[in-house]
This record gives sequence, C-alpha cells and structure tokens, in this order.
Amino acid sequence: MDDLLTTAEKIRSMEIRGAGRIAVAASAALRNYALTLGSLDIEEFNIKIEEAAKVLVNTRPTAVSLPNAVMLTKKHTSLTVPEAIDEIVASSDRFIKNATEALGKIGRIGAERIRDGDVILTHCNSHAALSIIKTAFDQGKRISVIATESRPRRQGFITIKELSDHGIPTTLIVDSAVRLTMKEVDLVVVGADSISVNGALINKIGTSQLALAAQEARKNVIVAAETYKFSPRTLLGEMVEIEDRSADEVIDPKLLKEMPNVKVKNPGFDVTPAEYIDLIITEVGAFPPAMAFAIIRDYLGIELDHH
Amino acid sequence: MDDLLTTAEKIRSMEIRGAGRIAVAASAALRNYALTLGSLDIEEFNIKIEEAAKVLVNTRPTAVSLPNAVMLTKKHTSLTVPEAIDEIVASSDRFIKNATEALGKIGRIGAERIRDGDVILTHCNSHAALSIIKTAFDQGKRISVIATESRPRRQGFITIKELSDHGIPTTLIVDSAVRLTMKEVDLVVVGADSISVNGALINKIGTSQLALAAQEARKNVIVAAETYKFSPRTLLGEMVEIEDRSADEVIDPKLLKEMPNVKVKNPGFDVTPAEYIDLIITEVGAFPPAMAFAIIRDYLGIELDHH
Amino acid sequence: MDDLLTTAEKIRSMEIRGAGRIAVAASAALRNYALTLGSLDIEEFNIKIEEAAKVLVNTRPTAVSLPNAVMLTKKHTSLTVPEAIDEIVASSDRFIKNATEALGKIGRIGAERIRDGDVILTHCNSHAALSIIKTAFDQGKRISVIATESRPRRQGFITIKELSDHGIPTTLIVDSAVRLTMKEVDLVVVGADSISVNGALINKIGTSQLALAAQEARKNVIVAAETYKFSPRTLLGEMVEIEDRSADEVIDPKLLKEMPNVKVKNPGFDVTPAEYIDLIITEVGAFPPAMAFAIIRDYLGIELDHH
Amino acid sequence: MDDLLTTAEKIRSMEIRGAGRIAVAASAALRNYALTLGSLDIEEFNIKIEEAAKVLVNTRPTAVSLPNAVMLTKKHTSLTVPEAIDEIVASSDRFIKNATEALGKIGRIGAERIRDGDVILTHCNSHAALSIIKTAFDQGKRISVIATESRPRRQGFITIKELSDHGIPTTLIVDSAVRLTMKEVDLVVVGADSISVNGALINKIGTSQLALAAQEARKNVIVAAETYKFSPRTLLGEMVEIEDRSADEVIDPKLLKEMPNVKVKNPGFDVTPAEYIDLIITEVGAFPPAMAFAIIRDYLGIELDHH
Amino acid sequence: MDDLLTTAEKIRSMEIRGAGRIAVAASAALRNYALTLGSLDIEEFNIKIEEAAKVLVNTRPTAVSLPNAVMLTKKHTSLTVPEAIDEIVASSDRFIKNATEALGKIGRIGAERIRDGDVILTHCNSHAALSIIKTAFDQGKRISVIATESRPRRQGFITIKELSDHGIPTTLIVDSAVRLTMKEVDLVVVGADSISVNGALINKIGTSQLALAAQEARKNVIVAAETYKFSPRTLLGEMVEIEDRSADEVIDPKLLKEMPNVKVKNPGFDVTPAEYIDLIITEVGAFPPAMAFAIIRDYLGIELDHH
Amino acid sequence: MDDLLTTAEKIRSMEIRGAGRIAVAASAALRNYALTLGSLDIEEFNIKIEEAAKVLVNTRPTAVSLPNAVMLTKKHTSLTVPEAIDEIVASSDRFIKNATEALGKIGRIGAERIRDGDVILTHCNSHAALSIIKTAFDQGKRISVIATESRPRRQGFITIKELSDHGIPTTLIVDSAVRLTMKEVDLVVVGADSISVNGALINKIGTSQLALAAQEARKNVIVAAETYKFSPRTLLGEMVEIEDRSADEVIDPKLLKEMPNVKVKNPGFDVTPAEYIDLIITEVGAFPPAMAFAIIRDYLGIELDHH
Repeated sequence: MDDLLTTAEKIRSMEIRGAGRIAVAASAALRNYALTLGSLDIEEFNIKIEEAAKVLVNTRPTAVSLPNAVMLTKKHTSLTVPEAIDEIVASSDRFIKNATEALGKIGRIGAERIRDGDVILTHCNSHAALSIIKTAFDQGKRISVIATESRPRRQGFITIKELSDHGIPTTLIVDSAVRLTMKEVDLVVVGADSISVNGALINKIGTSQLALAAQEARKNVIVAAETYKFSPRTLLGEMVEIEDRSADEVIDPKLLKEMPNVKVKNPGFDVTPAEYIDLIITEVGAFPPAMAFAIIRDYLGIELDHH
Repeated sequence: MDDLLTTAEKIRSMEIRGAGRIAVAASAALRNYALTLGSLDIEEFNIKIEEAAKVLVNTRPTAVSLPNAVMLTKKHTSLTVPEAIDEIVASSDRFIKNATEALGKIGRIGAERIRDGDVILTHCNSHAALSIIKTAFDQGKRISVIATESRPRRQGFITIKELSDHGIPTTLIVDSAVRLTMKEVDLVVVGADSISVNGALINKIGTSQLALAAQEARKNVIVAAETYKFSPRTLLGEMVEIEDRSADEVIDPKLLKEMPNVKVKNPGFDVTPAEYIDLIITEVGAFPPAMAFAIIRDYLGIELDHH
Repeated sequence: MDDLLTTAEKIRSMEIRGAGRIAVAASAALRNYALTLGSLDIEEFNIKIEEAAKVLVNTRPTAVSLPNAVMLTKKHTSLTVPEAIDEIVASSDRFIKNATEALGKIGRIGAERIRDGDVILTHCNSHAALSIIKTAFDQGKRISVIATESRPRRQGFITIKELSDHGIPTTLIVDSAVRLTMKEVDLVVVGADSISVNGALINKIGTSQLALAAQEARKNVIVAAETYKFSPRTLLGEMVEIEDRSADEVIDPKLLKEMPNVKVKNPGFDVTPAEYIDLIITEVGAFPPAMAFAIIRDYLGIELDHH
Repeated sequence: MDDLLTTAEKIRSMEIRGAGRIAVAASAALRNYALTLGSLDIEEFNIKIEEAAKVLVNTRPTAVSLPNAVMLTKKHTSLTVPEAIDEIVASSDRFIKNATEALGKIGRIGAERIRDGDVILTHCNSHAALSIIKTAFDQGKRISVIATESRPRRQGFITIKELSDHGIPTTLIVDSAVRLTMKEVDLVVVGADSISVNGALINKIGTSQLALAAQEARKNVIVAAETYKFSPRTLLGEMVEIEDRSADEVIDPKLLKEMPNVKVKNPGFDVTPAEYIDLIITEVGAFPPAMAFAIIRDYLGIELDHH
Repeated sequence: MDDLLTTAEKIRSMEIRGAGRIAVAASAALRNYALTLGSLDIEEFNIKIEEAAKVLVNTRPTAVSLPNAVMLTKKHTSLTVPEAIDEIVASSDRFIKNATEALGKIGRIGAERIRDGDVILTHCNSHAALSIIKTAFDQGKRISVIATESRPRRQGFITIKELSDHGIPTTLIVDSAVRLTMKEVDLVVVGADSISVNGALINKIGTSQLALAAQEARKNVIVAAETYKFSPRTLLGEMVEIEDRSADEVIDPKLLKEMPNVKVKNPGFDVTPAEYIDLIITEVGAFPPAMAFAIIRDYLGIELDHH
Repeated sequence: MDDLLTTAEKIRSMEIRGAGRIAVAASAALRNYALTLGSLDIEEFNIKIEEAAKVLVNTRPTAVSLPNAVMLTKKHTSLTVPEAIDEIVASSDRFIKNATEALGKIGRIGAERIRDGDVILTHCNSHAALSIIKTAFDQGKRISVIATESRPRRQGFITIKELSDHGIPTTLIVDSAVRLTMKEVDLVVVGADSISVNGALINKIGTSQLALAAQEARKNVIVAAETYKFSPRTLLGEMVEIEDRSADEVIDPKLLKEMPNVKVKNPGFDVTPAEYIDLIITEVGAFPPAMAFAIIRDYLGIELDHH
C-alpha cells in the first residue's frame, strides 16, 4: 500500500502528469499492490482493491484517463485470489502495453490522412497530434505547420520548439488569427483531453472556435486520442466539467487589483461538438465521432445494461 | 505649408493617432493651408491644394479616415479663390463638427439597442463601441461587459480599465474563450477600422472569429463606426490590405532565434463578412451592412459615374 | 379639436382599427383640424398642429402606421398659415390616396411572383397578403392556400373564410404543422405589422418560425407591406417592442387558477430576420429587405443627418 | 386464449393505452398464454405463439412498442415446450421489469444533463421527458419549464398541471411562440413516439419545428425514449407513417361546413431529423442519435443478416 | 423605318447577338429612326417612337439589355420634335458610349479583386468576366483559370481558346467536377444574363450550382455585369422566365427516338440567389447584390412611384 | 494456378468488370485454386493462398470490392489443409451467394423509402440504385426519374435506356441543371464505388455536388451499396485515391493541341461527406452513414485491435 500511496501522491502533486503517464503509473501501482495481497481471501481482496482504486481515482477527480486505467486494471471475474491476481496483472500489462504503443499507432494511422504539401493547423501541445505530424514528415511529405500561441499558458511555444527541433517549417500565430489564417490551412489536427459518448471533444480552451472556423471553411478536423481518453461516464448522462483556472494566468494580479469592477474568467477547456469533427484517430483505428460509443463499449468494456 | 508639413509629420510619426484625431487634424491643416493661398489664381490654387492633399494622404497610406477627411475638405466647385477658400473652410468646419459630435451620436443611437440586463461582448479598444456601452450604462441600464484580452497588443487591458473606472461590471477573458463564453452574451458591440462597399468590416485581428461565434449562437453583432470609416475606394474594386505587424509583438525575439524553422505571422486586422453583422451604428443612423454603399454615396459624396 | 379628439378616442378604443384604417383616419383628422386654424398666426398654428399630432400618436403608442401618417401629414415648409394649410391638405390627400390604392398595387405586383399551380402558405390574417393571393387567383392561376390557425386568437379562421368565399381551395393546419407541411409549399406570403431599417419583419407571433421553416426548405418568403408600415425610428436605433398580451387568450382563467406554479407568456408578435425574407412587396415596388432604408428615406421622408 | 383476446381487445379499444402500458400488457398476455400451452408438441406450440403474437400486434398496427414487446417476449430457441415456456416467461419478466424501471433510469440519466438554473422547454406530454425534469428538480436544482400548448389536443395543459403539482415553476406558451422564446431556453427535453434506425425522431406534431428553432439558436435537444420505442423495421427500409387525425380536433365541424372550399389537414406526428438532436436518453444510457442502430441490434435483438 | 426593321430582323434572326451588341444596335436604330421623323408633330412623333420601340423589344422578348437600351434611348421630356430628336440622339450616344466603354471599366474594377497567384474559376463564356481576368493577367498577376465545359453548348471551349490565345494557363473540367475542384479555387468570376431587383443572378445553366459549391467552400463569387443587364421590371414583381431549349443540344434525336419513355429538359439558365454572390462589378462600381435596386433606379432611371 | 491467372488477366484487361462481377470472379478463382492445393502441408498452403490473393488484388489496385472479396474468401482458422479448404470453399460460396442476392435485397429494402408519386433523381449508372427504382415501379408506385447525362462518359444514356425499356417515365438533364431541377425532386438515389469508415461516399464525379444541391433543398439522399463496397482500409486512416482519367474523354485531342496553354483535369470520382447522406441501403439493412464502421466490422470481419 505504501508504494501505491506514493504513486497516488505523485499524481496528486503533479510530479507525475500528462494523461498517458498518469494512466500507466496508476495501472502499475494497482497491479503491484494486488501482488502484495496474495494471502487474503477473495472478499477481503476485492475490498482492498476497491479501496486502492478509490485512492488512485480521487487524486485527480476530473481526469478521464486515470479512472479508465484503474477500471480496466481492477476488473476481474475470478473466484480465487491467485487467479484474480493473474487477471489483474495481465490486464495491467495489456493496458500499459497498449498505452505505450498508442502514440506510435496513432501517428501511423493519422499520417495516412496527410498529403504531400499539406499545411496543418494545430492548437496547444498534444503528443498524439504531434505524433501524426512528425510521422507524416518522417515519411518524406513536405508539410508545414501553423501553431497557435494557446493563451493563457502559451503551450504553443512548446509545440513550435518541438516542431522546429524536428525540422518542420512552422508558423506561429496568435489565437485571434485562426479564422484569417484558415484559408491557407489544408487540415486541422488537435489532441483531446476527453471525448464524450456523443462524440463531443473536450480539449484546451480555443479548440472549439478553431473547429468552428475550420467547419466554416470546410477544412477537415482530425482529433488524435488514445482510447483511454474516452469518457464512459458520459454514457450515463454525466457532463464533463470545465475547470476554471486562476486569473493570474491571464493578468498580473497587481494590475487587476487596480480595477475593482473587473474579474477574470479563465476556463481551461471547451467543448467541440461532434459535427465539427471529421475523424477521431485512435490507436485502434480512425472513426467518425458518432462511433465514440463503440470505443467506450469495446475498448473500455462498459456494459450498458448493468449500470 | 510649414504648419501642414508639421501636422503631416505628426501623423506619420504617430504623435497624432487614432482614426478620429488624424482625420480632424488633417482637415484643419488643409483648411488653414487654404487660407494662406488667397493671392494665387484659381489654377495655381487648385494645384497647391491637390499637392497638399497628397502630402497628407501619403503619411499613412492604409488608413481610411485620413483620405476621407482630405477629400471631403478639399472638394470645391468655385471658380474664384476667395469662394474656393470659403467653401473649403466651410467643408472643414462641417467635417470637424461632425467628427467631433459623432461619438456622442453613435453612443445615443447604439444605446437604444441595449436592454436592461444585457451582457455585452466587446473586442480590442474602440471609442465608438465604448461610447455605446457607457451611454447605455449612464441611462441606468444594468449591463455588464465581457472584454477580450486582444492579443498581441492587449488593448483589452485599456478597455477593462476604462470600463472599471466608469463603474461597469466587466469580465476579462482570453481570446480563445470567446466561443465558450458566447452563450452568456446578449449582444456583441465592436468598433471598425474600415468598412467596405459590400458591408464587410475591417477591424482588429480576432473580430471576424468573434463575429463567427456570435452568428453560430445567433447573437447580434453591432458595429460602431463614424461615416468617415467607410472606404470609398472599395467601390472601385480596391481591396483593403491587411497589415502584417512585427513578430516581436507575439514572441520574445531571443526565444524565436532559438527556433530556426519557426516564423511568426502577425496580421493586424481581419475581415468580417457582412452576413455576420446585424447593424452598423453611424452618427447618421443605424443601417444593415448592405447599405454601406448609401453611406459612401450620401456622406462621402462619391459619384459613381464619374470615377 | 373636438372632431380630432373623437377620432383619437375611436382609435384608442379600437373602434377604428387595422393599420391602414387608423392611418387614414388620423391623417384626415389632422387635415380637418388644420382647416379650422386659419385665423392663427404661423407660430400658434405650428404649436397647435404639434399638439394635435401628439394627441393622435399617443392613442396607440406601439403602432407604426399611425405616427407615419401623422408625420407625413403635418410636415410643411410654409411661412404663412394659408400656405401651411394648403400643404397639409395636399399631404393628407396624397397620403390617403396612396394608402387607399396601396392594397391594389401590392396585389398586382405580388401576383407576378405567383405561378400557375402554386401552393401558398399564409399566416394570421393580412389584407395585403390576401390581396396578392386573390389577385393571382383572379388572373386565372390555379393556386391553393395553406392557412395556419394562428393561435391564440385564431385569425386563421377569418383568413380561410375569406379565401373560401373567394373560391380559393384552402387547407387549414395547426401552427405546429408548419414545418411538416412546408415540403408541399411553393411560396410563403405574409403581411407585416412593421418593418425595421435592417429589413427585419415584426409580425404576428409565429411568423418567424414559419419563415425559419421556409428558409430550411429553401422556399421563398414574400412580405406584403404598405410603405407606411416601415419604421423610421429604427433608423435611430430604436427597437420595436413586443407587446405581451393577456393570458386569457391562451387558457381559461379558472383553469389557470388551479395551477399556482404556472404563468402564461403571450407575446403578440415576433421578429423575422431579413435573411429569411426574399422580397418585400410594397405599393411602390418589390425590394429585398436590405432596401428598407431606401423606403424609409424616399417614402417616409426621413432626413438622416438632421435627427 | 380468452385472456389474450381480452387484452387484445382492451388495447384495440384504447382501454389500455400509452406506449409503455400497452407493451407491458401485451408481453404479460403472451407469457400467460404460453403457460396454457404445456401439453402441445413444439411445432404446434410455435404455431400457436405466432398466431397469438399476430393477434396482439394487429390491434394497433402503427405503434412501435407493441410489436417490440411481442417480438422480445415470443423469441425462444428451445426444442421442447417446457423449455420454450421457461424462456418465454423469463423474457416476459425481463421485458416487464425493464419497461417498469425504464422511466426511473431515464430520469436519473437525463437529470445529469440539467444544470442548476436551467430553463427547459418541453412539448406535448411525455412521461419520460417529465421524469427527467422532475428528477432534476427533486435533486434540488432550481429549474423552470416552458411548456407549449400543443394544439390541437392541448396535451400541454396536462403537462403544466403535472409540473405545477410537482412545485416546478412553469410558463405556458402557444406553439407559435417557440422561436421567440428559444433565446431564454437552456435545454429542450421531449419524448418520443418512435425512433428510426437513422436516428430520426417521430413525435407529436410540432416537435420538429421546435427542434429546428433550437438548432438555429444552438440549444441542445434531448430526447427521452425507452429502448422499446426504437423501430426495428426501419432497418429494413420501412418508413414511419404519419397518422392523419380528425378535422374536429382543429375546428368546429359546423364552422367548417360553412366554408365549402376549406379542408383540414391534421397530422398527428412529425419527423425530426437526427442532426437536430443532441442526445437520446434511454434506460440503458445516453447516445447520439446515430447509435439508434446499436440499440435496435443490442436491445431489440434484430439480426441484420437473417431478415 | 426600313433600317429599323432590318436591324430588328437581324436581332430576331440572331445575326446580331450578344447582350451588348444587341443593345447598341437597337439604340442606334431607334436614334436613326428618330432622325427621320423631323417633319411630324410631337404627338405623331411620340406614337411612332413608341411603335418602333415595340418592334425592337419584341424581337427577343426574354432579353433584358434590349428593352433597357430602347427605354433609355426613347425617353425624352421635350415638347417639340427637334428638341425630342436632340434628346434621343444624345441619349443614344450616351448609351452607346457607356456600353462600349463598360467592358474596359469592368475589367479594371474587377481586376482589383484578383491577387497575384489566384486560381479563378469561370463558367460559360462571358465577355465581362474575361475582361476582368485578362486585365488582371495584363497587369502582371500570375493567375490561372479553371473553365467548365458548360454543357450542352460547350461555350467553355470558346473560353479556353480565348484564354489560351491570351497566354493564360487554363484547365478545362467537366461541369460535374466543379465541387471537387473548388478547394483549389481562390475566386469565382462569372458573367450575367440578367440581374433582378433582389440581387439574384440569371445566368447560364450551372451557374447557381457553381455558386452553391463556392459558398459551401467560402470562396467569393464575383459577377461581371454591365448596368444594362439589370432588370427594371423585376421591381414590379415580374419574374425572369427560364428559357427551355431544344433536346437536340443534349442528345442525338435518333437516339432519343429509341427511348419512348424518355424526354429531355434543357433549361438555358438558372437563378443564383443574392446570398451566394459577394460583389457585382459594373462599369459604375462594385456593389453587393442587395444594391441592385440602386442600379436600377440610378442608371436605368426607373421611377418607383410612377409605375 | 492457370485458371486463377486467367481470371486475374480478365479482371486486369477489364474483360470482367463491374464491382460485383469482379468480386464474384475473384472469390471463385481463389476457391478453385484452393481446391487444387490438397496435397500441400498447411504452411505451404497458406503461403500459396497468400500469393494467389496478391495476384488477384493487384490486378485493379484502386478497387474496393476486389480486395474485400479476396479477404473474405481466404480467411480461415484451420490447422489442417482439408479443413482449410472446406472453410475457404464455404466462405467463397457464402460470399458469392450474398453478392448475387444483394441487388435484389437492396431493391426491396430501398423501395420501402419510395412513395407513390415520387420524382427520383439519379446520377451515372448504378445497378443497385436502379434495382431500388425498378422494384418500387414494379410494386405499382407511379414514380418518375430524372437522370443526369453524367459527363464525360455519359453513363446517363445507359440509365435512361434501361429505365425507358422498363417503362419508367424518365427525364434527361445535363449535369449543370441539377440544382435548378432539384425543387421538383422528392428523393435522390445513387450508387457507390466505395464507402469510407466515416460514412463518406466515393462515387462518380458529380455525385457530391448533386448531394450538396439536395442538402440545400432538404431532399433526402439515399445511397445503394452492397456491403463489399465498404472500405476496411479507411479504418486505418487510408484515404481513397481519386483516379485522374484521360483528357480524351472530355475534348477532342486535336482541338486541345491547338490550345497550348490549356490542360484538362478529368477526375473520375468525388467524395460526398456523410452529412449530405440520409441513408445507405445495403443488402443487410438501411443505416445512417455513421454506421459504416459497423458494416466494416460486422460484415467484412475487420478486427480493430489486431491491425
């Protein structure tokens, strides 16, 4: 339990961060914890595993990859503890293997959608989106990228550094220049924080207005998302909460103090409706957003009729 | 001529700036210059006036208010110099009076469109748009404002300071949060750098994507624009050039130097199509954008068939 | 003044009603009142006329035809009373003549838009819309009409009676059946309570959702409107108020009393945006809605720059 | 067979009505009938069951819940009669249990989509839609409802009574006021008569124009529908017929008789395309309408390749 | 009269054809005929002129440029014949001069809308559209053109020959390839057979679906049209008839004879709604289509209130 | 192997053509080849089968039905050659039976969507689309068809001959007349060359602009497609290539030679986005396009997670 608590704490304190790394760490922690429970009877075992799962999930209540990883790891149908441990170890190994290989698979599948000469627009800093772009470039396609600044935290600066280091010609624009620039764009590629059962995309603030501008100009929007980014709880009606972040990211607090009638609203994410998305690229294939339900059922193993 | 050259230099060096102030200064300079030409014959007079007009117009070749002010001031139909001077002085006085009173009139006409309780979204920092908002507030309407940061130059910070000082409850958002925030908005009010004969609005970068998001959500967009912001030359097919501004406004040049494959594109303005605009509020009335031609003909005096 | 007060009272009490009849009565009353003021001096005359105009206009503050009629009648530029009376009498005669002939002219112009075999959808009960339909029928075109019930007051019942008496095959539908029925419709023809400077139509509640359904199905919407229905004050930013009518029109008050948590909202009109309207048919020609401003300027004589 | 015939008669005569009650009664009747057939051989048994199924289904040929209930109840794979009876009894029990619990589950899943302060628009009188609204209210969310009159039968009056009795603040509007009122609405919640394989909703006349107005204003539309409302036969291309109801519901027959050129068209339902629907809430989860096929296959057990 | 009849016959027999050539010939013929009527009194003169006007107009009843030319030529306000002749000669000279210079002016105004590197799509064979394209090319802009075949008469072959001879890189596509090709297009430039008061364009069959595809892809559509192409009679509600042309243009009559159940529909023109058009380029300036009314009033001299 | 090579050659030389016939021939050839391999061990057998599969697939690399037929035929899970042969023979028999019966099933399912009196628009020459139309006609529905010429190869002429011979009233139009004609159309029925995982339709050039015009006019578009037309490789991101065909199909090469600046672009197909398609009719049922993935998984047997 100590190791598990240590991992939980590292996730809570954001020492471990990024949807993928969190998911892998949590799965491994749960697996390792299960291995220590060999001497219990099966009822005690199941109770302990449930408790450990809760500890892990509660470290970051709004994430999606974390509860998915835990749920996929802990699920077993065994009646004896040794078999249950075997099942959990196997599930964890499978989950970690899939998660680790997902970026490469997404890169290969997504790169198929990119043609020689394409100008690609991206937003914020998504490993999965960049995997697609870099794979296409490495295949010899002469592409270039337009990257947004992505205020307030300017993750666009990380993106342009990565692309520049990879040798890919890149143009930086402010977030307000998206619509003007859209006519030079061939394809939009973004990542995902989470995907709902109705195919809606929850991603970095600004994504939905970028997708709107793309739709206005009839440019395709591709979302790169590992299957563990899909949100099973939206199947039960749950809505994804949009986190409100600190005003300090937007304006110097001293400046703000001089303006008594001003407050700041700094939402971290927004929601892009499915109709603005052409394809979601996962490690198990490319789908239209309406198939989000199939991913949730087939890859996250949610049973609709037993909720 | 010295005074005129001084004014021209102040406009060029941006000591005099802001569409309204430039227009007024240029009209006054031309008027005063005309007053010094009483001893010439009419041909010489006309040549001198044309030369002076060119000097003024060339100080800021992309502005619209400047050539409009000069054109409206210099036009005369007299055959003698004293009459020509009288005409020019009268034109200049009329132009300056109209320009000076325009903000107040726009404020009053535009405030009619604002209802008690409205949440108003604005972008960048427009005197005319703020005149409408403040007038409505001063009429006792309990309104609040959402203002965008307006990267890269953050004119939104000037806007929120002005609104806060005026006592109007204001919320600051980043430019990327416009679409998410749009569902709380009742009305969009923005200013104009220029308006084309087809009713298209040229304004601060980001305006067109804000208008697109407003149109998606069926929220009305109101443009506040003095008549001297309308561009007569678009009648002759001319397109408004979008100025590309310095990369330094977007990213620290040292940072940029470390990324050899990255360049910055920093357009100062964008173009909002007429179909995303509900009404243009001028000092002579509220019109749909399709009537831009009537403004150009009736208030800027362009004769279609003599070009 | 007595006659004028009598007319004013009849308008207030709705003994005289209908936009056209009110306008004609008010113009005649003002004209006749002017004829009684021959002994005054011009200042007194003008004051009296202004007072009388206010009395008339205030009887129905939300109508548009009434202030238009009064404004067009009272306007004069004479410096002597006899000339002023002559001018007012001439204006009134002209206004009444135009108003009287308008329905016929609208019928003839509008009927040009109707083809043999057309199925026409109409809403509520509009004289001008029915004038178009009947004229087309009288020209031998084999048309039929679909008329909505037009809850809550069911003016559709008046419409179907009129059409039936005229021999025109007519189908009655409930208001909710508009979208389903739209695929059988060739053309929508409705009347107007008022038209704004931006071409928006204010008309009986339900018109805007009928126009929306027509636009969805790409069916043309024609609005029949006398020029005195256009609202000059919208040029100055004024918005048209939507009258809230009695709950009794919608539900039996006794029934309502048994439901303490229920209230009724019964708006009399709604606003159809210009983009859902193909043509406005007036007695002076057929125009797209964006030309509403030209009607206001040319036929209602509003001077934009002297407001 | 007598009991089954009695139930069939009650369904035909509408003594038993409402999609849910009909489905439950039919399933129970078939189950009870099966229990009387223990002495037959399996061929005879199957023939009798098919006959009984036809009797039940033919009582209301246009309903969807009825054939679904019968199909789900009668299906068995047994080779002996006792086993077949067991299977049918189990199927019936399961169907009845699911149908009975469905409203509660739909209420809980759907209530997740409602936020504190929401204004909800509903149409006609749907148990499933009201289950969602009441559940959200019972969870302490301060919501209010706008309900349409729902001409011609005014089922809106039943809805507002139910909501008022439940303590929920409610506003009644005429059907024509939907578009005007839409800007105050946060969410639309309606029920379903049937749902097609392409996600189209067949529901009370007026639903589709309400959904159109919601889509225009970018407000989400939620459909509450038990899985037995989905139409498997649309998978085979069949279209849902729109029942034409009596003119007497719309206008007093005496009045109509005086208008020889007038007829009444009174369609009971209309079809809302999938693109105007955000989510369908069933007792087994929330889905986008494109997943209707999955419901039909997974919950109604239709085998695509054996039709 | 003989000369006039000769000209009329040449127009009827299509020896003189093309909207511009017809208009010029008719104006000259009427002018020359007026010169022969010097000995008449004014009533006789007016009757003769009206008769001659009718003869000319009736040669091609569906054209628009022909009645416009005749109307603009014949209109006079003189009370004596010599003055009337002078007026008519002056009107004709002015009309012919304007018509002759129009192509060059349209070319210069329209070329302002074309940027270096633009790919321009055109349809059929329009002198005015090609004038814009050639002018831009002659200004040194490196443009290329995509031209449709324009079935059934394949006027696209004339267009590509003209463009090839002018040295402009050109690509020929079939009419069905317009939408696929649209993503490579920067600007659409087409001509006009006629323009309605509501800004609708009547032009060669296929224009409206090309404009629809352009609008879907947010590409601007520019219409090149001399002012004499605008239809004043649409102001009075008249609709433009779409000519049905011979089946022989589409299929070999022998082939058709073998298919007894097949007929051919071969409309010569279609109608593009104003909302799909960005600008109309005339010889007197560039306007949005909603300003068609202003052209009709200001350049064709139609008096709205005297019809 | 000789027989297989003969079949392969016939497919390559287009002696065997049409998606269905190619698929059936390839499946049969592979099956017969398997029957000759009884004496091999299982490793050798599998290698030979893979080689044969490649030979067949490479004859027409861009087709979709061919690799689908081969993949469905060759797949087996046996460990001994006799069992493998049995499996392959069974798979081939099943595939051929399904393919053979598919047209009839599609005809029956699709005919359900056609109502008495419908006017149906079709494009090019599709067996599956015509099967639907003829079935509806044979059911006694009084339908008529509008068929496009389908330049450049004019397959429309084959279509109208077939329809005329079947007794169905048919109208031929040029491809440019689609949008004008759309208002008379009730339903669009087209075939498919291929369907992507996101529901996009690859079909004869012109299909997408016909679908766009249908969508603009809110007319339903139905696609008739055998399940073997669905493209499993699009699941892995692959895009369907649009074949560029010979210029000679469009213009006489001699004519072209005289125009040195002209080239011809003659794409054979275009891509219709899923949002313009209402239903896809397959032999296993009618689905919305978003369900393409389900067809690929359930009928083509693609395993998402083992690619």
